[in-house]
Amino acid sequence: MKSAEKLMRRALAGESLPRPPIWLMRQAGRYLPEYRRRRAEIGGFLDLCFTPEAAVEVTLQPIRRYGFDAAILFSDILVVPHALGQKVWFEEGRGPQLEALRDAEDVARLSSAAMHETLAPVYETLRRLAVELPAETALIGFAGAPWTVASYMIEGGSSRDFATAKSWAYSRPDSFADLISLLVEATADYLIAQVEAGAEILQIFDSWAGVWPEAEFRRWCLRPVAEIRRRVAAAHPDIPVIGFPRGAGLLYRDFAVESGCEGLSLDTTLPLTWARDTLQPKATLQGNLDPLLLVTGGDPMQAAVRHILETVGKGPFIFNLGHGIVPQTPPEHVAQLVDLVRG
Amino acid sequence: MKSAEKLMRRALAGESLPRPPIWLMRQAGRYLPEYRRRRAEIGGFLDLCFTPEAAVEVTLQPIRRYGFDAAILFSDILVVPHALGQKVWFEEGRGPQLEALRDAEDVARLSSAAMHETLAPVYETLRRLAVELPAETALIGFAGAPWTVASYMIEGGSSRDFATAKSWAYSRPDSFADLISLLVEATADYLIAQVEAGAEILQIFDSWAGVWPEAEFRRWCLRPVAEIRRRVAAAHPDIPVIGFPRGAGLLYRDFAVESGCEGLSLDTTLPLTWARDTLQPKATLQGNLDPLLLVTGGDPMQAAVRHILETVGKGPFIFNLGHGIVPQTPPEHVAQLVDLVRG
Repeated sequence: MKSAEKLMRRALAGESLPRPPIWLMRQAGRYLPEYRRRRAEIGGFLDLCFTPEAAVEVTLQPIRRYGFDAAILFSDILVVPHALGQKVWFEEGRGPQLEALRDAEDVARLSSAAMHETLAPVYETLRRLAVELPAETALIGFAGAPWTVASYMIEGGSSRDFATAKSWAYSRPDSFADLISLLVEATADYLIAQVEAGAEILQIFDSWAGVWPEAEFRRWCLRPVAEIRRRVAAAHPDIPVIGFPRGAGLLYRDFAVESGCEGLSLDTTLPLTWARDTLQPKATLQGNLDPLLLVTGGDPMQAAVRHILETVGKGPFIFNLGHGIVPQTPPEHVAQLVDLVRG
Repeated sequence: MKSAEKLMRRALAGESLPRPPIWLMRQAGRYLPEYRRRRAEIGGFLDLCFTPEAAVEVTLQPIRRYGFDAAILFSDILVVPHALGQKVWFEEGRGPQLEALRDAEDVARLSSAAMHETLAPVYETLRRLAVELPAETALIGFAGAPWTVASYMIEGGSSRDFATAKSWAYSRPDSFADLISLLVEATADYLIAQVEAGAEILQIFDSWAGVWPEAEFRRWCLRPVAEIRRRVAAAHPDIPVIGFPRGAGLLYRDFAVESGCEGLSLDTTLPLTWARDTLQPKATLQGNLDPLLLVTGGDPMQAAVRHILETVGKGPFIFNLGHGIVPQTPPEHVAQLVDLVRG
């Protein structure tokens, strides 16, 4: 099947489909026993990302089980800082750890010179997936947005309040802007290379977009993503991009108008009638079931799914969660969800 | 000075003032050396909340330094679960800890029978403050909103994703509703008693309101606060209430229309032109400088303060932060902020 004929691509081209395509953020992950087995065999998390055979296998696992309309490359947003020369490691139960950047000199030491070489196994994973996926399944590549990636690079991991990263941006905006520029360039190149390896759709995750006042949201979240989107379009005008400024609230509106993204992934909290009226005329919506409702299952999940389909399912729409699947999700609830969405 | 003549009360009555009143959330706190000294002398954090002499002292410290237009009772939102019989303790550097509620039986064991007795020192603190505060300074009492307090009671402390509390609400809504009802009743009684002890304004903190889809926001955040506000008004129709549904984004609009609160405290991320156009016709706005800009100080802080004053300072408005002061704030930046706002 040609890319443009796949349900995901039709939805992203603005078509309202009788039943929306469905995939789930973090659909390849710890809630699946077959994932946990593969993960245990291979050792480190980055090893899993950088071993094409294993990354292909875990990417395909949820496709085999549920027949989702899209497979998303198994990888992590922090492979980019790793490829720029920052030390990144994953400890079980602690989340990602990075040797935190402290100043402009640390930023200046980063380099994209060896990036494509480091990321070659990711491109190889995509090339294999492009061959192995079922004909009707779209292949999604992805990257973190510059602000979200920068926040990990400065905080040295995840954070509750992003005090270090935000304070850097407020007090030393020039060196912060240098870091963001480097990430814009590297991320655009990385996404373009993903397309050349077989990705048919791209998603840019700005998971921590919801912590900024409006002016800083525009400067550090929206404009960098718009610039990446522009660069990808210059290289590959036919590839749609889904933006995910999680937690942006009202600023989703500005993102929809100015980012250039064809798709907008909605977090769980965005009111859907507003999204339908304000955002859907400008972009294909994706989302936004609360991952904890997928854990709960049963009537509460069904009611929420019906509400989503009734509210935004009549325009261009892709069913998804509002955030990644959580590890405690019962796999049978995912099967029930897919049945429900497919009617 | 009569309560109604104080700047804070005039602003909350809908008056647009030539210069807005100013106070800061967590203005009595660890950024002040005199606070850290008093805290070290007294031992535990709850001891500080429940020792009127000490609580009065730390409440007054920032008033002496900066002459804020309001003093907020020094206390904590978790004195309510404590007064309902749940074990609550504070560990340095770990935040609050609670013996987490696990099921309907744990909820049923809670009781407000001894609440006022346990909270008597808080009322005593307010009585002393009402006498000791400068004549022009308004006295603010406060409580946590039911959802935010319930989240601590179920998670056993603070949380990143509120998975346990949200899953309880989704899967066992009846017992969750029982907990919320108990908290509505206890919180309303607690706030009414605060007014009777001298509080002239009340603020209700829903710090974690920003994690729910719309329907659950209405059920677990907005309606409980509206019910508390109704009960307070029935007992004391002249006392204004400030609501703070932090992170509610677009749903601030519903909160402004339906909560009955005279004041709306804005978090740092809410776009101010939207707040001015949509919320300010319905309520006095309060906020919303990023606390990290108060840490940064200098030009970035000044530019942000000017932007806030220019955008929402012409309608009824109270200057504040978008969240509590952080411990690393230089006290001299607070003095500069007060000068700036007072022109």
